[in-house]
Amino acid sequence: MPSIVGYEMGTAGQPVRRVVRPLRRLEPDEVLLRVAGCGVCHTDIGFLYGGVRTRHAPPLILGHEISGHIEDAGRNAAARIGDGVVVPAVLPCRACPLCRAGRPTICRAQVMPGNDCDGGFATHVILPARDLCRVPGAGEDADAPVGSVAGLTLRHLAVVADAVSTAYQAVARSGLTRGDLAVVVGLGGVGGYAAQIAAERGAAVAGIDPDPRRLEGAAASSVGLALDPSAHSGRELKARVAEFARQTGAPETGWTILECSGTAAGEKTAFGLLVPGATLLVVGFTLESVEIRLANLMAFDARALGNWGCAPELYPEILEKVLAGKIDVLSQTELRPLVEIQAVLEEVADHRAGRRQVLTPSGAEEVS
Amino acid sequence: MPSIVGYEMGTAGQPVRRVVRPLRRLEPDEVLLRVAGCGVCHTDIGFLYGGVRTRHAPPLILGHEISGHIEDAGRNAAARIGDGVVVPAVLPCRACPLCRAGRPTICRAQVMPGNDCDGGFATHVILPARDLCRVPGAGEDADAPVGSVAGLTLRHLAVVADAVSTAYQAVARSGLTRGDLAVVVGLGGVGGYAAQIAAERGAAVAGIDPDPRRLEGAAASSVGLALDPSAHSGRELKARVAEFARQTGAPETGWTILECSGTAAGEKTAFGLLVPGATLLVVGFTLESVEIRLANLMAFDARALGNWGCAPELYPEILEKVLAGKIDVLSQTELRPLVEIQAVLEEVADHRAGRRQVLTPSGAEEVS
Repeated sequence: MPSIVGYEMGTAGQPVRRVVRPLRRLEPDEVLLRVAGCGVCHTDIGFLYGGVRTRHAPPLILGHEISGHIEDAGRNAAARIGDGVVVPAVLPCRACPLCRAGRPTICRAQVMPGNDCDGGFATHVILPARDLCRVPGAGEDADAPVGSVAGLTLRHLAVVADAVSTAYQAVARSGLTRGDLAVVVGLGGVGGYAAQIAAERGAAVAGIDPDPRRLEGAAASSVGLALDPSAHSGRELKARVAEFARQTGAPETGWTILECSGTAAGEKTAFGLLVPGATLLVVGFTLESVEIRLANLMAFDARALGNWGCAPELYPEILEKVLAGKIDVLSQTELRPLVEIQAVLEEVADHRAGRRQVLTPSGAEEVS
Repeated sequence: MPSIVGYEMGTAGQPVRRVVRPLRRLEPDEVLLRVAGCGVCHTDIGFLYGGVRTRHAPPLILGHEISGHIEDAGRNAAARIGDGVVVPAVLPCRACPLCRAGRPTICRAQVMPGNDCDGGFATHVILPARDLCRVPGAGEDADAPVGSVAGLTLRHLAVVADAVSTAYQAVARSGLTRGDLAVVVGLGGVGGYAAQIAAERGAAVAGIDPDPRRLEGAAASSVGLALDPSAHSGRELKARVAEFARQTGAPETGWTILECSGTAAGEKTAFGLLVPGATLLVVGFTLESVEIRLANLMAFDARALGNWGCAPELYPEILEKVLAGKIDVLSQTELRPLVEIQAVLEEVADHRAGRRQVLTPSGAEEVS
């Protein structure tokens, strides 16, 4: 394998373009990963069309939601050759004071594929070996079954790298527990998992999204109350959620609100749902500003917690839940050939994709 | 003592008016407190002139920053007669699930004098006995010395009820520790104490306030860097604080930002100082909205914590620090006769008062 075939963003707003990168020599702690799948995230759309800048200037191969097999490794990581792995979307350095103080997600030397270096919209990606999360029982074949869910493969597990794990850390930070009330604003890639994970913890879950397909999907599974924000005022939404809390026996205070839409409108809706002792998780990202009464945090003795990525330590337990079917990724995910990347990016940008799109290299890249 | 003389808010925006309330019978758990001092807080000004509504509709005697002597008590609280006490500004019920779960500041049955019931701009106030914080060594005379600070009296300790304790809980919640960097936005009644308390914890403290008198006062004591926000852009302010962090050996991440101005401008300044892992405490209150990029909490893996009042459990340790002179209230406080209340309220509303104004009944109320 003398080269990597990928699709790079040359200029924001322009179509990605196929590139062939010569394979460089691996550093002692690096691995060469053969990509099984790479999910398309709202963040990629932000880089491409939303004015968000990548930390490493373009041209850059995007994609940070990666699963794959370790095909080659530097001398310190040779034992990992053959492993099927999920790649945490944010890879901390493990050496700096912040990492040593247990704050890996704000490590200043962190590496996010497709942001700090070439990412996973490619046949291969070179990454630091540390913290790649081994998938038990993943053989060499990316299409072979993994875990106990029929049809689940290493390719689908790409979404664990970011969409599932980001939602998981956000819910974990909130301290949500059995009998609590969770409201998920934005039931897309991350929000859908936030709803599932909150329900798996035993919370009553309300979901808010203007997209009727998402509302239906969520209502069919983890969400007990599905609300379209365009059909209600902020006051009505809050009243409906309060009624739902009463019906489910959840408290009228201390709600957990997960803002996963990454839109100013969603943020406004989420902030408007604050009650005494509430915890708002800011999970989605947007460059937009929003006009809010920030002092309501004081009046409600509430808190707003930002959530960036997910600490690698949490990945094994997340993966375990996914492999056991406690978190359903299969029905939320659609595998698409990597060669169709431009069409897929446009579908996601235009909100035409109902499920998380995972790009899968298949050999076709080599000759296209 | 057959009656309480006080000054009630009849209609917001109008001058307060002297009233004589007949003394009602005390409930078994209530006490009659003879007021030694009652501080004038930004919150009172909000009720009077800022459109903020009291939970108990007017007419109402305002004032929630109270010290005094227990003069009479219901049958369950008789042992407390004679105690000199500081009254926590927020008195939780101690019986509800939230109180039992350790969340007294969001107790739905909490009583805040001057908001839920008549407050301390009066000769006396009737309050639940629970959680009134005893001042060791406070005799019957409100003008007698207390603690080890020359000139300090029970009257001055009124400010412990809210300004000091609110700042104390906010700093405690932030987790601020030796070697950290704290930035206090708004060096008024609460912010000045936040700066002192942060410095007492061993943090390097920067202060931001447009009032040159406050900047000078803060720079003379606890604040190592005093900045006028009107003289700098948001970017410049952040650069100056970062330079201060480098000079003092504080980290470039994880700053603690205490928004104590209770203004939209201050909130915008405070939010603009977010760095990775930052903790923003929202301590000041305003009805104004502010336009911010909320998703920066996500991008910085930062958090914004609202702070309402202070849990009664913290008062003994706060009082100990004040009585020992580790937190200076004397130089921050000006005692004023209660009969001058209207003039004092107007001075505070117009930002003409340099120090916290504490209204002190003196007997003149009886005959005026």
